[in-house]
Amino acid sequence: MIPVMEIFGPTIQGEGIVIGRKTMFVRTAGCDFRCSWCDSKFTWDGSMKEDIRMMTTEDIYRELREIGGQSFNHVTISGGNPALIKDIGTLVDLLHAESCQVALETQGSKFQTWMRDIDQLTISPKPPSSGMNQNLTILDDVISQLDATKINLKVVVFDEADYQFAKQMHHRYLNLPFYVQVGNPYLEDEVNAHTSKLLARYEEVIDRVMQDDDMNHVYVTPQLHTLLWSNKKGV
Amino acid sequence: MIPVMEIFGPTIQGEGIVIGRKTMFVRTAGCDFRCSWCDSKFTWDGSMKEDIRMMTTEDIYRELREIGGQSFNHVTISGGNPALIKDIGTLVDLLHAESCQVALETQGSKFQTWMRDIDQLTISPKPPSSGMNQNLTILDDVISQLDATKINLKVVVFDEADYQFAKQMHHRYLNLPFYVQVGNPYLEDEVNAHTSKLLARYEEVIDRVMQDDDMNHVYVTPQLHTLLWSNKKGV
Repeated sequence: MIPVMEIFGPTIQGEGIVIGRKTMFVRTAGCDFRCSWCDSKFTWDGSMKEDIRMMTTEDIYRELREIGGQSFNHVTISGGNPALIKDIGTLVDLLHAESCQVALETQGSKFQTWMRDIDQLTISPKPPSSGMNQNLTILDDVISQLDATKINLKVVVFDEADYQFAKQMHHRYLNLPFYVQVGNPYLEDEVNAHTSKLLARYEEVIDRVMQDDDMNHVYVTPQLHTLLWSNKKGV
Repeated sequence: MIPVMEIFGPTIQGEGIVIGRKTMFVRTAGCDFRCSWCDSKFTWDGSMKEDIRMMTTEDIYRELREIGGQSFNHVTISGGNPALIKDIGTLVDLLHAESCQVALETQGSKFQTWMRDIDQLTISPKPPSSGMNQNLTILDDVISQLDATKINLKVVVFDEADYQFAKQMHHRYLNLPFYVQVGNPYLEDEVNAHTSKLLARYEEVIDRVMQDDDMNHVYVTPQLHTLLWSNKKGV
């Protein structure tokens, strides 16, 4: 059984290595982290506890098809931290059997064998501004058990300390595709309210990376969904 | 010798399969097409003829390092249509020897053997709104000579006829990664002037693709540089 917070789509993946991809989203409930700027606090702060549904893999797949019809062949599993949930493996198997690719994002605090089956696995270590203290020994261990050609790293950058953390992560795992993602401090859901401020922040991070000889093999990306829809749920 | 219109960077690649990647740009002069909405008409309309420089591969590499220092390991060759130029092959070889990856964009109207060496080769057939009539026999021939794992397709969409063309291209070459890119009709270079209009257009194209069962394995992307800098040159 999988604790599901929301299922929605199809929409675009707004960030990271599959940015722009038409996809469905399955958001699981529960997280081992408490990031200060988490854009999905409702997955762990109890505020939407009554909306969490314990679903079987078949229930989830049925609901994906009810909502998305035949208009998808890619599913993104997000959280919370889906890596806390052992049964994600059976969902991944079913989606693959139904000719869907599967992307998943986790902070790299826990390993599950099913991670090896994810088509695009994003590991997103949390920088200092999150208030979390990412355990790098565990992160090393998680990454060492995965196929480097199927995973990528993403670090959110709000400030200079975060930027230095991003650089440290890039150099610690130089063989992995590396995404610097501009932080979004505007968690209200008024559509379009923050686009110009987000773009200004994005430009600042671009400038920082462009001037830095130690950050060459990197991507700098915004969150497209926040440019379009701010932090609105369900898109 | 290569006719060079401009060399600039490092900046981000704003579009397509390497969206967000830190890169240098080499823009060649000359094009066999005359797209109505071309964002780089100065490469072929004679308006900046005096700025075209005939450069050797070594000259180009020296200038890339003068401008970009050690702060890049990726170079994007754009145009115009760089596929008109036989000597691009020696530039690609030199860049590879200097540990730089190379991306290149062309409309698929001409084959060159060096295309097989490009790390990310984007073929961008031109839709009806361009006023061009893409020769699909030639396009088939060009694509058949390339390694499907190293190329991708990108189609710009301004209107419904373009969208139908995009769909046709996606289904003609179903095995290739496919990018739908929202068209930019705002070719003036006032920074930030058109962001909200471009995002509205982007949202329209997203909506169209999301509702379409025949367009599942696709990416829908904006041009990040136009959101940030409109059509300003040199960024």
